Amino acid sequence: MLKENCVFCEIITGKIDSYKVYENDDVYAFFDNNPINEYHTLVIPKNHYQDIFDIPEEELSAVIKATKKIAELYKEKLGVNNLQIFSNSGVKAQQDVFHFHMHLVPREENDGNDINWSTNPELQEKFDKLVAKLNN
Amino acid sequence: MLKENCVFCEIITGKIDSYKVYENDDVYAFFDNNPINEYHTLVIPKNHYQDIFDIPEEELSAVIKATKKIAELYKEKLGVNNLQIFSNSGVKAQQDVFHFHMHLVPREENDGNDINWSTNPELQEKFDKLVAKLNN
Repeated sequence: MLKENCVFCEIITGKIDSYKVYENDDVYAFFDNNPINEYHTLVIPKNHYQDIFDIPEEELSAVIKATKKIAELYKEKLGVNNLQIFSNSGVKAQQDVFHFHMHLVPREENDGNDINWSTNPELQEKFDKLVAKLNN
Repeated sequence: MLKENCVFCEIITGKIDSYKVYENDDVYAFFDNNPINEYHTLVIPKNHYQDIFDIPEEELSAVIKATKKIAELYKEKLGVNNLQIFSNSGVKAQQDVFHFHMHLVPREENDGNDINWSTNPELQEKFDKLVAKLNN
């Protein structure tokens, strides 16, 4: 199922142009139009789902398998050995287009695109309480 | 297969303690010991694989399905509606432990943990060349 006025649905139908890098029955992959690095790629399900909560697990599985295939393609064709994959669900997690998508970003040393890794070691002291909350 | 002296393999066997949040035949999930946010979780295959290139697609699929299950658990138990998932492959992509792992990080507005999103619009001009390289 597609959704009207969804940019990614319109990329799938070809109403909006894209640079396709991979496609199968379930999945479409293309260059991100706002790339962080060269070959920054988005892998999306052909059906419209909003986020990780919404996408059924079989289609999520198809997305990650395609992501791995593309990683292997980039390794073989371009020598890419370092890459990040990530997916944002929700406005507060920096989701911008509300059609589930997996980013694949090849990385180089000192490319200025490190993930901001501000860990909070003091949270460790709360682990007992946090895990108890889950097992309620 | 486990690997000797791998921290995550030793977490799986219980030689190193961890705060488990989920487990099935293929996958183990626990709190990251260097959390970015509360409930920052790592989802790992029980067999040792180095990265996205190394892990077989069926076990990668098991990891992402478990990640979705945990997202749903956090939504139900904790009201988490915003989260990022990501996985780093390679030193230059900030991989630190060389046993494949998927991060799941619940996010809040202004939590200081935004992904650094320095896009390079000028890369768009190279898309034709980049896609041609892949189709060689």
